Amino acid sequence: MNNDGNKISYETAAEAVRGKIAEALAQTPKILSSMMDSLAMSQGKNIRGSLTVLSSCDADGMAEDTAVKIAAAIELLHLASLVHDDIIDDSDTRRGLPSLQSKFGKKNAVMAGDYLFCLCFSLISEAYSSRASSDYIDKISDFSKVIGLLCLGEIRQNEHNFDFDLDLKNYLRIIGGKTASLFALSMYTGARSSDMPHDKAKIYGRIGGYFGIIFQLIDDCLDYDGEFSTVEKPIGKDLREGIITLPFIYAARKEPALKKLLSASLPQEDSFDTAILKIRELGGVAHTKVLAGKYRAKAMKLIMTLENDYKKKELTSMLDRIYDRQK
Amino acid sequence: MNNDGNKISYETAAEAVRGKIAEALAQTPKILSSMMDSLAMSQGKNIRGSLTVLSSCDADGMAEDTAVKIAAAIELLHLASLVHDDIIDDSDTRRGLPSLQSKFGKKNAVMAGDYLFCLCFSLISEAYSSRASSDYIDKISDFSKVIGLLCLGEIRQNEHNFDFDLDLKNYLRIIGGKTASLFALSMYTGARSSDMPHDKAKIYGRIGGYFGIIFQLIDDCLDYDGEFSTVEKPIGKDLREGIITLPFIYAARKEPALKKLLSASLPQEDSFDTAILKIRELGGVAHTKVLAGKYRAKAMKLIMTLENDYKKKELTSMLDRIYDRQK
Repeated sequence: MNNDGNKISYETAAEAVRGKIAEALAQTPKILSSMMDSLAMSQGKNIRGSLTVLSSCDADGMAEDTAVKIAAAIELLHLASLVHDDIIDDSDTRRGLPSLQSKFGKKNAVMAGDYLFCLCFSLISEAYSSRASSDYIDKISDFSKVIGLLCLGEIRQNEHNFDFDLDLKNYLRIIGGKTASLFALSMYTGARSSDMPHDKAKIYGRIGGYFGIIFQLIDDCLDYDGEFSTVEKPIGKDLREGIITLPFIYAARKEPALKKLLSASLPQEDSFDTAILKIRELGGVAHTKVLAGKYRAKAMKLIMTLENDYKKKELTSMLDRIYDRQK
Repeated sequence: MNNDGNKISYETAAEAVRGKIAEALAQTPKILSSMMDSLAMSQGKNIRGSLTVLSSCDADGMAEDTAVKIAAAIELLHLASLVHDDIIDDSDTRRGLPSLQSKFGKKNAVMAGDYLFCLCFSLISEAYSSRASSDYIDKISDFSKVIGLLCLGEIRQNEHNFDFDLDLKNYLRIIGGKTASLFALSMYTGARSSDMPHDKAKIYGRIGGYFGIIFQLIDDCLDYDGEFSTVEKPIGKDLREGIITLPFIYAARKEPALKKLLSASLPQEDSFDTAILKIRELGGVAHTKVLAGKYRAKAMKLIMTLENDYKKKELTSMLDRIYDRQK
């Protein structure tokens, strides 16, 4: 499949993904452009897109040209889900800037998210337009399935909003849907965009799934991080919004009274502050990090089975960065 | 492309579209099923899907098997857009039943709509999985473009909410996006699912576009129809929600005072009732129907150029039904 594809270095490719996203957002009709500009300004770390191009690399660290477009499609899909998430969670900020829904209203944000979904599918068609490929059908089908999983993860999370009895199993199902599925797709499609057969690419998909779980576990730890006095980053934002994550689940298992504290019909800000301190004291955050470490070991075990030394090295360093990140 | 396709009669195919939609909605994971059941119960007239299978028919009125799946995909896309529209318009009912957003909340409705988008793309991949087809890429690209146009139509409509100065040109741009684009896609993709070359299928797309405009013009007339005393159907629902349509535009051109009546900072229900009666008196509805008639003539002119007598006859009767419908 990559016979007529051009190759570029991994770093160039990862940078090109940003350019491709910016280009897609910039080409939108005028009426949408202020919303899309707003999104373009707040491009994130593009971890998913980087994993896509990295997974396409050969032994010399050269990435597939096609992978850049697929990576941009993945990031746009991610962006679409963020825009819709912010509507669902009533979030005012995203990546440190006002969220679309707070800046342009929920109505426009719903449509902007839908529009991003179609930009994503347009990019996938563009990625394959120059090559006749029966993989293409699988690809669309893969993308649709993952959007389905993302939606299910969000709906499930929503279903368990303020459910202080949420258990580990259901928590993992939620993050498996809302986060791990897209990471898995990123690495699987990246690997497939090189000549790699389905069976081998599936291992990349599994590594991606682990990366996603670790990413979310660390995210959920970071939510409990910081000082109460700082203004920029509220501590325990998730908990206050009713999103129950692992630090709470662990802590509440040790001290079930935590549930009662927050189950009051109208829990006060004070109760949340008390609960957050308690959760940290009880080791909820530390335990979550331990679980992240276990998934890191699983991911490492799979990475070590890969034949390509370049990817072994780069994936390991990416994993370290995800695991060790402080924000 | 249809070499190995099976053929079934148009009536059987149109009925099979309903079955296919019900099947897709029924196969959803448990957590979504109450929402999907709710949607399955309220299947509409499936006009768009019927146009797809009809456009695929041969001279004997036999439709392409593949067209059934594509038609179902189109109806699911339509359904997705309705679910998101109801969030945007804050509508409590849809097709005479409670809307998803009123029954399950806006949060779940956003995700359910996203999920329907991906069911749509899954069905398209299913439609093509048994045939190697380079058309497939065009198809996804066509679907993405149309979703883009749908979104733009909605955003534009939203932008002109309570804009009593909306003119004919911008009104036509709105309905071109929100309604005509999907009708055009229905007929174009239906035609393409038979052996028809792109150039000829484009004529079907143009006919579909006219059908969509006529459909919306009649819809906008029907919104002003009926008695004030009946409870089920509020008259001038659109106007009360700030959606400006052609009957108002025509009437306000004759009597600009209408704009002032409704531009008050907090227009009363009374003002709307007065305005609605005025709009009817001033011939706003009648004029809109006249414009629908002009588009009907344009559509008929194109239908008469078709070579297939079966489709000529059926499309004409479909057009009559759309133009003459009373609800």
